[in-house]
Amino acid sequence: MPAFGCPHLRLLPAWIVRYPRRLLADDLTAGLIVAVLALPQSLAYALLAGLPPQAGLYVSILPVIAYAWVGSSMVQAVGPVAITAIMTFSVLQPLATPGSAQYAALAACLALMSGVLLCAGSLLRLGFLSQLLSRPVIQGFVSGSAMLIVVSQCRHLLGLEASSGDLSAIKTALAGQISGGLHPAAVIGVSSLAVLAFARSALANLLVRAGLRSTWAAFIVRLMPLLVVAAATAAVILLDLERKGVAVVGQIGAGLPDFQWFIPDAAQVSLLAVPAALMALIGMVQNIAMAQALAIKRRERVDANGELLGLGAANLVASVYGGMPVGGGVSRSALNVAAGAQSPLASIVSALVMAAIVAGLAPAFSRLPLAVLAASIIVAAFSMIDLKSLREAWAYDRADALAWLATAGGVVFLGLERGIELGILLSLTALLVRASTPHIARLGRIAGTEHFRNTDRHEVETIPGVIFLRIDESLFFGNMNAVEARITSELAETPTIHDIVLVMSAVNRVDTTAMEMLCDANRDLGERGIRLHLAEVKGPVQDRLSRSRLWPTLTGQVFLSVNDAFATLAAKREN
Amino acid sequence: MPAFGCPHLRLLPAWIVRYPRRLLADDLTAGLIVAVLALPQSLAYALLAGLPPQAGLYVSILPVIAYAWVGSSMVQAVGPVAITAIMTFSVLQPLATPGSAQYAALAACLALMSGVLLCAGSLLRLGFLSQLLSRPVIQGFVSGSAMLIVVSQCRHLLGLEASSGDLSAIKTALAGQISGGLHPAAVIGVSSLAVLAFARSALANLLVRAGLRSTWAAFIVRLMPLLVVAAATAAVILLDLERKGVAVVGQIGAGLPDFQWFIPDAAQVSLLAVPAALMALIGMVQNIAMAQALAIKRRERVDANGELLGLGAANLVASVYGGMPVGGGVSRSALNVAAGAQSPLASIVSALVMAAIVAGLAPAFSRLPLAVLAASIIVAAFSMIDLKSLREAWAYDRADALAWLATAGGVVFLGLERGIELGILLSLTALLVRASTPHIARLGRIAGTEHFRNTDRHEVETIPGVIFLRIDESLFFGNMNAVEARITSELAETPTIHDIVLVMSAVNRVDTTAMEMLCDANRDLGERGIRLHLAEVKGPVQDRLSRSRLWPTLTGQVFLSVNDAFATLAAKREN
Repeated sequence: MPAFGCPHLRLLPAWIVRYPRRLLADDLTAGLIVAVLALPQSLAYALLAGLPPQAGLYVSILPVIAYAWVGSSMVQAVGPVAITAIMTFSVLQPLATPGSAQYAALAACLALMSGVLLCAGSLLRLGFLSQLLSRPVIQGFVSGSAMLIVVSQCRHLLGLEASSGDLSAIKTALAGQISGGLHPAAVIGVSSLAVLAFARSALANLLVRAGLRSTWAAFIVRLMPLLVVAAATAAVILLDLERKGVAVVGQIGAGLPDFQWFIPDAAQVSLLAVPAALMALIGMVQNIAMAQALAIKRRERVDANGELLGLGAANLVASVYGGMPVGGGVSRSALNVAAGAQSPLASIVSALVMAAIVAGLAPAFSRLPLAVLAASIIVAAFSMIDLKSLREAWAYDRADALAWLATAGGVVFLGLERGIELGILLSLTALLVRASTPHIARLGRIAGTEHFRNTDRHEVETIPGVIFLRIDESLFFGNMNAVEARITSELAETPTIHDIVLVMSAVNRVDTTAMEMLCDANRDLGERGIRLHLAEVKGPVQDRLSRSRLWPTLTGQVFLSVNDAFATLAAKREN
Repeated sequence: MPAFGCPHLRLLPAWIVRYPRRLLADDLTAGLIVAVLALPQSLAYALLAGLPPQAGLYVSILPVIAYAWVGSSMVQAVGPVAITAIMTFSVLQPLATPGSAQYAALAACLALMSGVLLCAGSLLRLGFLSQLLSRPVIQGFVSGSAMLIVVSQCRHLLGLEASSGDLSAIKTALAGQISGGLHPAAVIGVSSLAVLAFARSALANLLVRAGLRSTWAAFIVRLMPLLVVAAATAAVILLDLERKGVAVVGQIGAGLPDFQWFIPDAAQVSLLAVPAALMALIGMVQNIAMAQALAIKRRERVDANGELLGLGAANLVASVYGGMPVGGGVSRSALNVAAGAQSPLASIVSALVMAAIVAGLAPAFSRLPLAVLAASIIVAAFSMIDLKSLREAWAYDRADALAWLATAGGVVFLGLERGIELGILLSLTALLVRASTPHIARLGRIAGTEHFRNTDRHEVETIPGVIFLRIDESLFFGNMNAVEARITSELAETPTIHDIVLVMSAVNRVDTTAMEMLCDANRDLGERGIRLHLAEVKGPVQDRLSRSRLWPTLTGQVFLSVNDAFATLAAKREN
């Protein structure tokens, strides 16, 4: 299949125009499966975000279609996801009471603002910013967030009345419960948790050993959350558990929701600007990483800026329809691929099926106990705590492992925003540290040839008083200090040097700072009677440098090749 | 002279232990000259910082000795400087009334906190962070700050009563003055400004043309501020201008000041933390840049972390003695070098001379008019507005020129802190953009040799279905996406590829993210029947990679040289 390319702002996305009819059956089935299986997840993540559970269903309709229309990935699935949900909760909880109308309005504003930022980022071609974060930082962030999620859901799981989600409040309420007898919600929650955990960890193997085909086994495992949800709802209805204080989803209005418009005022904008930007960044990183992983497997290409636009559009639509920020989900996309999706049509089908479910069956969820949703969130969150990545980073590169730990610790102890800020800071510092030490080789000529090699590793000829330094990276403000330091140390080691040749064969760019530092070095060396030469300067670099004040003041020459320089300077010495 | 090295935490600095006696006369003279000539500057910058002018004299004593003892530069001079002064004013003005005891206490806290941060930075070896800022950003920051300085000093210059320094207030007051007759302070201020500006711009040339030796001419130019200060003070005393409303420095206590201790409380710490950090960063950047420029000329080496410690120690001492943050000044250091300083002894001498002046002559400054100090600040500030650097950057590299403008504009319109934050963000984004596009060459063999060259530029042999990609940079989270994209585009161009050889001769490091992305690429390519090989992997990189999960899963081989790989894969094809 050819790459579909970037569908920026076309009326019809490229994939529809060239849609191969043979994929239709696959996409229809996949859409149906995804809609049904993602249903409990969608309810649960809305709950996690502090919103009414049905919001998760609503944003699985139009926002999903918006992404399918605009996004660049073929099989990525967008919708309510865990990280976006916990970020929403963490941002809004200090500002409004979860469940209140004000909270819902702020959540819609958050979706709107992060949608605007994502679209703006796409138009400004800022997709490369997704590289701002290294994997250990992302893994640490996700793992730390997952720990927060587990803690936040404990009270729903156990049917506790504690209004805050922190550990000590849970402990107190738990102690009260233990002395007073177990809450029926806790029974439902813990048993659902046990079943779901078992389904995730061991069921597939067991079924395969019992003789089932592995695809069927995987399907049954994926079906389990739905079965647990159905069983728990049945238990609530049959045993009339609502009367015994089991919290349930509550009345959901039948039919599809209306559009809603929330325009944030200036105060809300300034309150939500940084959280919305961080949310956009995290959403972008997750979405692009997932989309790229999927695209490589399918021999397709993902356009990062196209992905930004898709995710932005999905969030803009979500802000007016459902009112919950959405993201590109790992589990959602995995489900989509496993179900056999071949194009965004599968997502569109899943959205239509979801719309049908919401229109017809929504009231059926009204007696679904919250404890079951909490159990499914906790199981999903546990699988997000990625200690294996920490172990691997520890074995491979301690610095990266420390970045993992710092980010996860930052999330858990300082909060999600501070955690991700710490992670970004660590990523950028790492970048700076690495970029600040360019590889520099002192060259000599292999006798009888025109080849030049590192004097440290090869037997080479040199010219007394002349050194050849090859700089193996582009020169910019971050690494010119290292070049200067190297020149200084070479001069300190060999005070008789009178000619320095910088071999620029690997230098693709010299920024203003580096150019000025070269001018300074040229002048300062000149004052000490040392000439500075350049060799093998690339065309574009030479074009720029020749316009700068380095060219007219250069104390030495510009040689086409190292060999020219070597021959010329050796001859000069002999004269 | 040998490099003096890093004097970290020794009892006696290395330069004292090995002090060559022949330098003594030079250092003594230089110290004397610097103390006298830097005097008006020191008063003026304290005024700029919103502190009593004498604070500038006080911090020219013990903090200067502290830097001389601990710092690593031989001729750098530390003391009250313009940028640190305007930053102090900009940070503290919203928090307290300039001149009040609370303002003075906050200034001391700011010096203390930035001293602590600098010392901590030195111990954590964070000197490399001074590379966070590119030159256009620094130049833009300094130029923008200088514009702010000029505006802030206009009211002192013109003897206006307007309490705020903004332009509209000045205009109003000025209009009132023009209708009511010129203020005598304005006469003094403007005429001082004219004399000083003339001295800076044209006097030296004139004197040289009149037959004076150029060193003498330069000395006279440097002496001018002192002469102007003396003349203005004489005018105030003789004409009794204080009665006519000319603001003067006011009573300065005779003798040396006492030590003072200000321990900031938690609220002050959280209020001043970010400003102190930015101040430490800017101080560090200026100080290290200046120290390095001086060291290169003198064939010495500067230890960035030693500089941090020196500057930190100076600020710690300043917080208890004088109470004004200090920095490494361009004009101060230039004065020091021009006066013939050879070692930190010159600074110590200047501190002792300053102590003598303060102890004996301080009361003489009590009738010095503020308008003269404002004039000298404005002249200094004008010389800091570096439009030439903007023009050069514009001609050389538009992106850098835009960074200059954005930073300067940020400083002027959003304030100093926001301006420098914007600058840092731009620098890091530039770094990221550049680092995210590694140079990748597709290689082929030059017929009949063992040399491999870029297929785009040379006539080379290739093997059908096999590509050799040489990556010319270390692999890390920021550029692996580009490597993946390149692989994907090569595969899209030539779908028959079955072997990819990554030539790692220029790869010095592969971080955890890059290693994981290599693993993913290896797995995904493997699923499509494409083998991934590595060639010329450097020793340290191979050590690490062989511990990772890439090694056991690699679908291809690891070749010692590109030629090995070429021979093996060509032979395979023929079989």
